Amino acid sequence: MQIEMREQADKVIARCRYLAQFTEEPGQIKRTFLSPAMRECMQTVQGWMEAAGMRVVTDAAGNLRGQYPAAASPSICLGMGSHLDTVPNSGAFDGVLGVMMALALVEVLKNEKLPFAIELIAFSEEEGVRYSLPFIGSRAVVGRLDPALLDVQDARGISLGSAMMSFGLDPSRIGECLLGGDVAGFLEFHIEQGVVLESEQQSLGVVHAIAGQTRAEFTFTGLARHAGTTPMRLRHDAVAGAAEWVSEVERLALATPGLVATVGDLRTHPGTWNVVAGQLRASLDVRHGDDSIRHQAVDQLLAQAAAIANRRGLTVDSKMQMDQPAVVMDARLCGLATEAIRSTGISPLSMVSGAGHDAMIVAERVPTTMIFLRSPGGISHHPDESVRPQDVENALAAGLAFLRSFASYCAPLGSKEKNTPHA
Amino acid sequence: MQIEMREQADKVIARCRYLAQFTEEPGQIKRTFLSPAMRECMQTVQGWMEAAGMRVVTDAAGNLRGQYPAAASPSICLGMGSHLDTVPNSGAFDGVLGVMMALALVEVLKNEKLPFAIELIAFSEEEGVRYSLPFIGSRAVVGRLDPALLDVQDARGISLGSAMMSFGLDPSRIGECLLGGDVAGFLEFHIEQGVVLESEQQSLGVVHAIAGQTRAEFTFTGLARHAGTTPMRLRHDAVAGAAEWVSEVERLALATPGLVATVGDLRTHPGTWNVVAGQLRASLDVRHGDDSIRHQAVDQLLAQAAAIANRRGLTVDSKMQMDQPAVVMDARLCGLATEAIRSTGISPLSMVSGAGHDAMIVAERVPTTMIFLRSPGGISHHPDESVRPQDVENALAAGLAFLRSFASYCAPLGSKEKNTPHA
Repeated sequence: MQIEMREQADKVIARCRYLAQFTEEPGQIKRTFLSPAMRECMQTVQGWMEAAGMRVVTDAAGNLRGQYPAAASPSICLGMGSHLDTVPNSGAFDGVLGVMMALALVEVLKNEKLPFAIELIAFSEEEGVRYSLPFIGSRAVVGRLDPALLDVQDARGISLGSAMMSFGLDPSRIGECLLGGDVAGFLEFHIEQGVVLESEQQSLGVVHAIAGQTRAEFTFTGLARHAGTTPMRLRHDAVAGAAEWVSEVERLALATPGLVATVGDLRTHPGTWNVVAGQLRASLDVRHGDDSIRHQAVDQLLAQAAAIANRRGLTVDSKMQMDQPAVVMDARLCGLATEAIRSTGISPLSMVSGAGHDAMIVAERVPTTMIFLRSPGGISHHPDESVRPQDVENALAAGLAFLRSFASYCAPLGSKEKNTPHA
Repeated sequence: MQIEMREQADKVIARCRYLAQFTEEPGQIKRTFLSPAMRECMQTVQGWMEAAGMRVVTDAAGNLRGQYPAAASPSICLGMGSHLDTVPNSGAFDGVLGVMMALALVEVLKNEKLPFAIELIAFSEEEGVRYSLPFIGSRAVVGRLDPALLDVQDARGISLGSAMMSFGLDPSRIGECLLGGDVAGFLEFHIEQGVVLESEQQSLGVVHAIAGQTRAEFTFTGLARHAGTTPMRLRHDAVAGAAEWVSEVERLALATPGLVATVGDLRTHPGTWNVVAGQLRASLDVRHGDDSIRHQAVDQLLAQAAAIANRRGLTVDSKMQMDQPAVVMDARLCGLATEAIRSTGISPLSMVSGAGHDAMIVAERVPTTMIFLRSPGGISHHPDESVRPQDVENALAAGLAFLRSFASYCAPLGSKEKNTPHA
């Protein structure tokens, strides 16, 4: 088995790199929702899934869904998967790895049937590139793709609904994408996209929560004045005020365990070297696994911005753009994933994911867990994104152990709840 | 005389506003070097100068130069003037006011001849908009318009030399623009473009130096990483590092009398809300009347940037783009201007100009002084730029007193040095 798992790990990595050829932009990886590149990618993946013994369909949201039957029917079902779309100039592993991991696990079964079915979902859209609307695929399978969203337009003015029709999908059947009531759990593998596992020298992590997130824009407004003729004490400098606040953002996040707070974008106006800036717009991104800690931090940063502005004769306006609650993964399923990893001789790190994932959406409806694989250098959304073969091998071994124990985990659920979707 | 001066002040302001109609962009004031709008403006000003008894020529650099003869020949000459070009979306007074002030003073003489001639120079170019090359007009009159600069191109690819020829000028005669050896002093009136006079509740200032200026670009480079998945302690955040440095820039300038230091432009890369910035470019502008204090400040800011970068695992590169020495105005002529203002019952403020002016260039060759008029609200290079009628009236009275005393000031010079340009 050891040798087979290493070969399977190499195949997973080779397939991820192979699928990278399906791109909208020669020379880089870019594969967005319902693009011709996505269609070619899906055709290839469908072929592999069918060869592994799965019955494959494309649902109305463009998700590729493969059924691997249980030993006996009726049965419960385990969902697995991740997404096939990418950001522009992406790496080869974000999303795709999770699909290839699930496929490899089915292949390892060599047509052996388990007491439960497996549904492999290759989600059509997670990154939100084409419609500035992330999670189109996973929203559809949990019944949360509001039909009003079908009117949203992409940069070329093509509505979501008509893009679906051009691809051969039927938007009126979006409701049929809903996960079956037999689905009793969901497992997503994904690269960590961060440096925590690497800095802790760990191979795998189990995600017990996806951080909640606040996104806001702060605008500091002062007076644009001549940089040569305006003495320091008579200035109302938007850059100087914002700089003081950025340092407070960093200080608070460093002092609050688990909090990340980022000012990633600054825009100065007029933005010329010889004018004291009259205005500066700053982005703020705050995340934590505990919503109350996050809200408290945001309140404090708002108050600090106001105090700094007041003291300097500036004004500050803030615009809240997102307040997304933290999502807690299913404790029992996380326990199962942890035990599965331990059974292979590895201790997994218990983690909060700072990034959103399909699992976060699926968790609204089905008990869900995620396994992170170490990201070398923390590099993500970049051509240099990679994954170590040993980590993929570890994850495959853990995944197989997970499959072996999932039936017993579900036994008390399977009989009673198989037709009732989880809330 | 009091009533006449008020009328003359109103005329100066009205003429500035009238000339604002000559613009390249309807709805705003924009009048750049050798533009059709500049030609119309020059024709109007030439008419006014000739009506005041001046002989007017356009020199090879496009400067409009009016000679008002002395009572007897040969004599020394007093130069006066400022520039007619503007920045885009300018106000009506920057530069133009100094030309109209000089014209008004000649008019007040009502053809009375003084013991010295007056040369009024309306400089063709000071702002550096069209060729990113400021002071074209004043460089020419001090013999410092390097012929190599004739090949510099504007945004449309038109060289300086061919722009001159299209305007009817002869670039081969640039050398003839040189100020005559009879010019024994130069006086420029200009709006302050700052808030110092207003905050001190003063009408007029005498400029004893033009600040030296350092312009530099600092680039902080860290690691662009996912804002959600990168813990605070594992970041190398270019924005956070630069913010700390911006605060140091402000702190040093506040602690150093007379120093202004400005970070007016910040550019983040990739500059997206969900990525820890990998790079930030910051502009730095440092000015002081004493070059050694300025150089010491710049050295300190370089060292602080390096220390901050080092502590944070960033790198910082700095590119020096300008190191322009301070220019000291002529002490005797500044004394004359101060006495002239005092004789009208006003105490002038002794000032360092933070902005460059034609006077700074002319001072290389001729004893020079400047008189600043209060800028309401410190507003400059903006349509709301203005000047108070009372301040213009005060400046005219002071200017007339200056003319009355200039001959005696020059007596010891006039006989000996009239044919020797000042170094």
